[in-house]
Amino acid sequence: MFGPLLTDLYQLTMLQAYFDRGMNQSASFEFFVRKLPAQRNFLMAAGLEQVLEFLGGLRFSTEELDWLASTERFKPEFLQSLQELRFTGDVWAMAEGTVFFPDEPILRVTAPLREAQLVESRVINLLNYETMVASKAARCVLAAPNRLLVDFGLRRAHAGEAGLLSARASYLAGFSGTATVLAGMRFGIPLYGTMAHSYVQAHDDEAQAFEDFACSQPGNATLLIDTYDTEAAAHKVVRLAAKLAQRDIGIQAVRIDSGDLAVHSRRVRDILDQGGCTAVRIFASGNLDEYQLRDLLDAGSPIDGFGVGTRMNTSADVPFLDCAYKLTEYAGVPRRKRSEGKATWPGRKQVVRRLDAGGQLSGDVLALQGDEPGGAALLQPVMIEGRRSLAAPGLEASRDLARRQLAALPESLRALESAAHYPVEVSAQLQAMARWVDSRTLEVGARAEPGRA
Amino acid sequence: MFGPLLTDLYQLTMLQAYFDRGMNQSASFEFFVRKLPAQRNFLMAAGLEQVLEFLGGLRFSTEELDWLASTERFKPEFLQSLQELRFTGDVWAMAEGTVFFPDEPILRVTAPLREAQLVESRVINLLNYETMVASKAARCVLAAPNRLLVDFGLRRAHAGEAGLLSARASYLAGFSGTATVLAGMRFGIPLYGTMAHSYVQAHDDEAQAFEDFACSQPGNATLLIDTYDTEAAAHKVVRLAAKLAQRDIGIQAVRIDSGDLAVHSRRVRDILDQGGCTAVRIFASGNLDEYQLRDLLDAGSPIDGFGVGTRMNTSADVPFLDCAYKLTEYAGVPRRKRSEGKATWPGRKQVVRRLDAGGQLSGDVLALQGDEPGGAALLQPVMIEGRRSLAAPGLEASRDLARRQLAALPESLRALESAAHYPVEVSAQLQAMARWVDSRTLEVGARAEPGRA
Repeated sequence: MFGPLLTDLYQLTMLQAYFDRGMNQSASFEFFVRKLPAQRNFLMAAGLEQVLEFLGGLRFSTEELDWLASTERFKPEFLQSLQELRFTGDVWAMAEGTVFFPDEPILRVTAPLREAQLVESRVINLLNYETMVASKAARCVLAAPNRLLVDFGLRRAHAGEAGLLSARASYLAGFSGTATVLAGMRFGIPLYGTMAHSYVQAHDDEAQAFEDFACSQPGNATLLIDTYDTEAAAHKVVRLAAKLAQRDIGIQAVRIDSGDLAVHSRRVRDILDQGGCTAVRIFASGNLDEYQLRDLLDAGSPIDGFGVGTRMNTSADVPFLDCAYKLTEYAGVPRRKRSEGKATWPGRKQVVRRLDAGGQLSGDVLALQGDEPGGAALLQPVMIEGRRSLAAPGLEASRDLARRQLAALPESLRALESAAHYPVEVSAQLQAMARWVDSRTLEVGARAEPGRA
Repeated sequence: MFGPLLTDLYQLTMLQAYFDRGMNQSASFEFFVRKLPAQRNFLMAAGLEQVLEFLGGLRFSTEELDWLASTERFKPEFLQSLQELRFTGDVWAMAEGTVFFPDEPILRVTAPLREAQLVESRVINLLNYETMVASKAARCVLAAPNRLLVDFGLRRAHAGEAGLLSARASYLAGFSGTATVLAGMRFGIPLYGTMAHSYVQAHDDEAQAFEDFACSQPGNATLLIDTYDTEAAAHKVVRLAAKLAQRDIGIQAVRIDSGDLAVHSRRVRDILDQGGCTAVRIFASGNLDEYQLRDLLDAGSPIDGFGVGTRMNTSADVPFLDCAYKLTEYAGVPRRKRSEGKATWPGRKQVVRRLDAGGQLSGDVLALQGDEPGGAALLQPVMIEGRRSLAAPGLEASRDLARRQLAALPESLRALESAAHYPVEVSAQLQAMARWVDSRTLEVGARAEPGRA
């Protein structure tokens, strides 16, 4: 959807400098989250599929190269090299739907330095967003198990691609479907829809609006009943149901979108039941998040399904992750950054997960790749030399993995409230390597400053 | 960039129902924000240009129609009508860059009902996002006047289109430019870039990394100095500057991205000045927002420019606006919604702005179109019968308007802290119309319920 120019300018100026010096040896970069937000007990990996599509399709068009040339920032030989650039590297990654924790890489790119560097901005852009939304959506799923949960958030998602990808990330995390039509077409996600207030308002008569819609979508209609007076509208639905029953047309559900949803849903349930409409479901929406889902269900509200929008699609309480894509090895030498408060672990790493006897997550180890202890190794090769080494699992399989991952979470991490941190141990070898890298950097730094020697 | 299927399913099912009943008279919808977030004293309109492009290019492709047919949700005659559908309506809007307040429509669509309804999801999706970002960016501009402000937020913007459009919205609001290359190509926005930590790490020697980069971008290089030890790196820059001066190559700036920016910037300024590098600028970045910009400048930090990213691009403290696109008139009859806490003003409206003798905003009036009091009418026709009636003003002109709008804000609204609300008066005629619409709805509602009569 977006080509290589959806990137930060410095990627291109760094590439030019690497080109000038002929630097293009193998580099490894890892994507990870530095810190868990206070409102999250775990994160759920998502976005890998979009990253692999981006890497697989990476190339500069003639139009893009001409435009770059017109900026007069780049040398012709360098632009020529971009024309031929393809992604030829390896990618190891956690499967989408996997639960993960801070400092654990969920993706590692190993490629010639320029390729691995160029893709940074878009890789972060995709993984940060889908992971953030899947993690938020997973909390809604935990708060409202066995309820219909539908993504309603396209309109306040942050522009178009976020609307599309949040439908995907929330479905992956366990939502039932989305209202976003394009997500149905692109990803095969089940679509759900109701009606808008404007539909009711465009009619002079609310009951007529309901009848028109029910006849237009026979058996499939969800009627929005809060435009004027929720309970009065519920009575209209009862009368309409009796009328339509003679024509064998059913009404699937009613939707309530305002006011105290617990109170209205109980009153509406009573009205519907007393009117013989026991099969008509109640669907609720309106600025919902996982806390409100839990509170409504704890209060015994007779709500069968929820439209969850804005707060999920924008991950409103945590609208970004403290994530990074960092160089961990270049030309066979492990690297790390030591900036204040932002130090990273060097080397190509693996995440090993251990389960207890009941199959629940009991602790992870962050280790050096190839030197890892026993347990399930979460990073697997998904692209080798620019080609997929594993067939894409498909969204349904990823969703199934996510479901199993949530089921394997310790009870404390399933809570909406902040829990004690899940144990992630850093292997002794990795710690030793970090010390070695630091000592080496100091040494090299000292060597490089003759004035100090 | 996205076609008509980036919409909510209910838009299409409502259209099917309207089609079944032959309902397609003229409808007016208005986009407005219901409530000002506590952390904002004003909003800045943005996104109109993208909305007009979307409306002007609205059509269903054969592939889209075939896919819709495959869902078996729609009747063939209806899908046939979609094939011919174009946007033929009128749009009145506030110019991008205009400051506005709650309940004030910034855009009105008047079109055959189905066209006006179909576009709702995408219109909100675009206006909500760009307006939210421009409003946040404007606060950064007010907090750091006369400083270089650069959008650095692509990577944590919510997927690709948000990265692209936040570059546009922040530039419109007064930012100096962006790091997002595609925004330079698409919108002509000035590009800025520095270097990444990985660039320094990929070299065995920090000083060598600086030298390579400065030679690759002669006179244009901003060197990132916090990878290992900020002050030590500043000393390296001084030595490098002396060396490069012999080759007539200058260093433009250094960037600090971590630690206490006030402390480091002072120390680095001293090191640079004592080393004769008085022309080398200091650029700072790292989770900045308007509050930190203000605090850093209040502390007298010698920082010449700021990279502002994540918190601006995600509008992290206000990641969505309480906005809506509501039917206000259908078939010549004004309409309103009365849902609890979400009632709207009926009819086609105009916003009239009054200025005081000093040219500062003194109060707005929300009035019925054609019945407005004296003052500047902010909504102007920008599209008539599906064609632009005004040439697009161009991003530079919109940016200039934004600058003048910020200059005309009363001092209290320019503060970062919450101010008393700006006065927006609802005209007596509009209030009377709302009462009339309510009484009419009740009457119609009563008539429509024979059981109650």
